[in-house]
Amino acid sequence: MSVYPIIMAQETFTHRDHLTYPYEERGLQFGDGVYEVIRIYHGEYYLLNEHVDRLYRSAEAVKIKITSTKEELTNLLIELLARNDMTTDGKLYLQITRGSAPRDHVFPVDVPANIYAYISDAPRNTTNLENGVSVITKRDVRWEYCYIKSLNLLPNVLAKQEAKEQGSYEAILHKDGMVTECSSSNVYLVKDGKIYTHPATYQILHGCVRMRIEQFAKDLSIPFHEEGFSIEDIPLADELFLSSSTSEIIPIVHVDSQQIANGKPGNVTRQLQEAYVEDAAIKERSMKH
Amino acid sequence: MSVYPIIMAQETFTHRDHLTYPYEERGLQFGDGVYEVIRIYHGEYYLLNEHVDRLYRSAEAVKIKITSTKEELTNLLIELLARNDMTTDGKLYLQITRGSAPRDHVFPVDVPANIYAYISDAPRNTTNLENGVSVITKRDVRWEYCYIKSLNLLPNVLAKQEAKEQGSYEAILHKDGMVTECSSSNVYLVKDGKIYTHPATYQILHGCVRMRIEQFAKDLSIPFHEEGFSIEDIPLADELFLSSSTSEIIPIVHVDSQQIANGKPGNVTRQLQEAYVEDAAIKERSMKH
Repeated sequence: MSVYPIIMAQETFTHRDHLTYPYEERGLQFGDGVYEVIRIYHGEYYLLNEHVDRLYRSAEAVKIKITSTKEELTNLLIELLARNDMTTDGKLYLQITRGSAPRDHVFPVDVPANIYAYISDAPRNTTNLENGVSVITKRDVRWEYCYIKSLNLLPNVLAKQEAKEQGSYEAILHKDGMVTECSSSNVYLVKDGKIYTHPATYQILHGCVRMRIEQFAKDLSIPFHEEGFSIEDIPLADELFLSSSTSEIIPIVHVDSQQIANGKPGNVTRQLQEAYVEDAAIKERSMKH
Repeated sequence: MSVYPIIMAQETFTHRDHLTYPYEERGLQFGDGVYEVIRIYHGEYYLLNEHVDRLYRSAEAVKIKITSTKEELTNLLIELLARNDMTTDGKLYLQITRGSAPRDHVFPVDVPANIYAYISDAPRNTTNLENGVSVITKRDVRWEYCYIKSLNLLPNVLAKQEAKEQGSYEAILHKDGMVTECSSSNVYLVKDGKIYTHPATYQILHGCVRMRIEQFAKDLSIPFHEEGFSIEDIPLADELFLSSSTSEIIPIVHVDSQQIANGKPGNVTRQLQEAYVEDAAIKERSMKH
């Protein structure tokens, strides 16, 4: 999944080989920054405004000043696609840190934020979307402000790695038995035709796809409850699924090696996947191209 | 506090101007690494072996492989002092990340860890050591594995900044009212001639100076209890103090603008400070130079 050659850095563009950071960078020494990953279908961003809005919310929560307006940043991101002649399915990675300064916990004074963004190919994982995936469960040991999309991702890294080592795609995290989300996606349980997911508190990331799923459910007249469920509810679920910008909506068919329902993606998940494809205009664009 | 010109990077030495990192570095994108700060007095490390041991423990906890042995790393760190003709009081910063690789939560395969270390001047803060400091109290919102000295320091950064904005030196963190530690130091309460501090569980960093303080207390026949205290115990304290490798042992004389005891550093703190100076051979070396 190689990075396209032109990268956005600060408010300009550069070749990927020219972008480096000094050893005293607050992202590198403190994880002192925030980020976004934005889906690209056929060379166009999906939910771009939603992601940009969230980036500014995250930055504000940790008091990082972004000098560009949302409109300016949005235009730069669109220009990035054009400069790379991007026309396929991919993703954008966008990061802002509190800048480069001599190491000190306290914020540096008059130091500009470091911002960069780059795009890479990311084909849709049709196998996972079609067949579903296995996940593990793991205690949620993260900090209390997971609604901030910060660069402090070590617990997420460790959880995802453990999932992989157990032959699974993701880790469902739980605090005192109550499911919060996965290591890099939101998670949902379906029971008796109703969708349950952790409320959008400080404890979970307020996913952009999660927000769309709520709307899809409304459009499809499927009750959507922002109501937590516990790991003990999982074996009794009719369906389970996860969502993220890179993953889209993926059925979960095994949890800790135990089969969920009949081990096949369920009907509610399928309806949401179809609504997603329509919303992201994936089919239409596929036909255009 | 400028960085000395020669930096250790991987297992070699380079000029500080030549050390940069690519934008896809796991420290920069995930805070996926661990670190140490080691005190230097008169050009010699204090508690070097203890810090190196802890670095390897942290790395093991997050499954980062360090190819050098402890002895090899120790020798490189000593060589770093010599190459910079370092003879004053300073500190070493040493960091290891999971390396540079295309962004993915899952560990990269066959990618070497990135390691670097540099030294800078850091005179002892005699004003703080003599007069004591003010601190604030703040809820501890960090993750559950604070015994790992990881690069996920955003909550620490935010707490320290808030302390600074309130004219204070540090923030005492508490979980459900129980004091854990400060944003970048351990904290202790003295009552009726006994020292109390949070036990060395997963919730706090096992400070190298903290370990020495336990020994100093033993040598001085001062009872040292690894027993948590609450924020409600603070106003009733006879003394409060904090410790870290850069701060040494600093009396706390105000908490949230409230005076502790008579507002002066206490007798137990003073005895520990004297033991520290002797242990670090600060006086002897001062006389030698």
